[in-house]
Amino acid sequence: MTESVDRQTAATRLRAADDILILSHKNPDGDTIGSATGLCLALQALGKTAAVLCSDPIPKMYNYLDITWYDGSFEPAFVVAVDVASIQLFGENNNVQDYVRRANLCIDHHGSNAGYAYATLVEPQAAAVCEILTELIPDNLGVPLTPQIAACLYTGLATDTGCFRFTSTTAQTHRMAARLIEAGADIGRLNEILFECRSRSRIEAEREALESLEYYCGGRCAMICLTRDQILQTGVANAELEDLTSLPRSIEGVDVGLTLRQQPDGSFKISVRTSRSYDACAIARRLGGGGHARAAGCEISGNLDNAKRAILQEVEKELARQDAEAEPRH
Amino acid sequence: MTESVDRQTAATRLRAADDILILSHKNPDGDTIGSATGLCLALQALGKTAAVLCSDPIPKMYNYLDITWYDGSFEPAFVVAVDVASIQLFGENNNVQDYVRRANLCIDHHGSNAGYAYATLVEPQAAAVCEILTELIPDNLGVPLTPQIAACLYTGLATDTGCFRFTSTTAQTHRMAARLIEAGADIGRLNEILFECRSRSRIEAEREALESLEYYCGGRCAMICLTRDQILQTGVANAELEDLTSLPRSIEGVDVGLTLRQQPDGSFKISVRTSRSYDACAIARRLGGGGHARAAGCEISGNLDNAKRAILQEVEKELARQDAEAEPRH
Repeated sequence: MTESVDRQTAATRLRAADDILILSHKNPDGDTIGSATGLCLALQALGKTAAVLCSDPIPKMYNYLDITWYDGSFEPAFVVAVDVASIQLFGENNNVQDYVRRANLCIDHHGSNAGYAYATLVEPQAAAVCEILTELIPDNLGVPLTPQIAACLYTGLATDTGCFRFTSTTAQTHRMAARLIEAGADIGRLNEILFECRSRSRIEAEREALESLEYYCGGRCAMICLTRDQILQTGVANAELEDLTSLPRSIEGVDVGLTLRQQPDGSFKISVRTSRSYDACAIARRLGGGGHARAAGCEISGNLDNAKRAILQEVEKELARQDAEAEPRH
Repeated sequence: MTESVDRQTAATRLRAADDILILSHKNPDGDTIGSATGLCLALQALGKTAAVLCSDPIPKMYNYLDITWYDGSFEPAFVVAVDVASIQLFGENNNVQDYVRRANLCIDHHGSNAGYAYATLVEPQAAAVCEILTELIPDNLGVPLTPQIAACLYTGLATDTGCFRFTSTTAQTHRMAARLIEAGADIGRLNEILFECRSRSRIEAEREALESLEYYCGGRCAMICLTRDQILQTGVANAELEDLTSLPRSIEGVDVGLTLRQQPDGSFKISVRTSRSYDACAIARRLGGGGHARAAGCEISGNLDNAKRAILQEVEKELARQDAEAEPRH
């Protein structure tokens, strides 16, 4: 059973600690890596030894982040996980699992956080962990936001909200963005890197995806699919494909958008995106995955037909369940 | 010569006026129509007669805006233009030009505003006219932001900044977004309408555009082109094509992105988008167009080859000019 803590308690424990190891989730995104790096820089500004550890390499686009990677040069005395909802999400590489079981603190914005750490700060209404840290670092930890820290936190805030498009975006999210800009985050450059730069191979993958587009459930479900061969042929990076997952849901009349990407082991990674009133997490959870209400994911082994059949079955169930709830009973 | 006024003076004149006609620019976008409608609702809340007039119909996606169209039922005693930088931009339909010459007030965020109105409030640092009105309406005009007014103003704020992506976005832009959310703007619904809904025909046009993609100037210029036939075949609305204009510039290594759309009269409407350090407006202006530093446009008559040749010549000049400036002279 984890101890639920508030911001000040979390900050007080971080201030009392040293030799701090910060853990990100596997297949790192902008929020886990932005919050880890921002927190690391803030702790270093307090004169502490701190470093970041992640199971997987970070996408190339985040190269501008000034990350101190953990290289084994100190024995971690305090372990803090950021944006990691459950133990499985840490991954298996780089000996990450050696440290997971002794996580002293977890800072997260997933309401589904499993409470695996000794103490947990969860704010489910926050659009990103970086949104929490934009106040926690200066107001509770007492470290002024430098342009460098602001760039880290803007990275997570902007990527986790699809640049302030997703429903998770609140007035507080925008207010934190304003604060980061005032602290010196160069959002012109960051937005160009994060949202306005697509490689030629990504463009090629987009064309392939558009050609694979299929409609199901009377047009209420759209699916794009990229096989391993197609992914390799276009040369597109996995991280670049992430953006494509919003495409099928964005089509008029589509309530559930599915993106199937074949993994190196042949299994299919499925991204589920839903419009309001439909629960992406419920669909993904029934296939062993998870996530948020509008964006979730799961993996299905087996061939493409099996994967399609399995996910479409769950989509149909969710559409039927919600429609039944929406209609008054007679 | 126009009189330059501040927010309070503009608000005082609006408070003193009645029978107010609000003018938008032709081919209306989210900012001109959002600010016109928001201002109209605010003036009506003060008990005034007010209505909106625009040369062209508004794109279908803005149907949720509660617009009081001018129907000739009152004789305008005060004319205010919003987001219209010059007289030509008013258009020629709906007798708009009858009122332009007696514009009492213009509220704009284009530094290039021609000063055609009797009094002008220009704030070039504002990302949108709606950003100005988010403070002007409650703080100067004294009308509380209703959820309805907030939805109008969010529409302009979000669309003119590409949902807070463009370099025009500032801390103030985000702070105004926060204020509009708190005033009741349903951004979940609005963002879905404005940014996450693409018709099947738009998707079809996107595929056509990707197939037309060409690179010039050693990959520093990318061009997509849709002929009139292609546009008609896909059935895509002109307004939907607007979004596509950001595609070519978004490709890695591309400094100038061009989108050519053939108009009903055979001429080509060219949208110019540039990365930092290159001036889209300079390119468009030399062909009789105009706009902002990163986003501008012009029209060229003649066949496709002529249009391509003319615009590429100006692109090459701009690339060469900037590169010469960037390199120190020996």
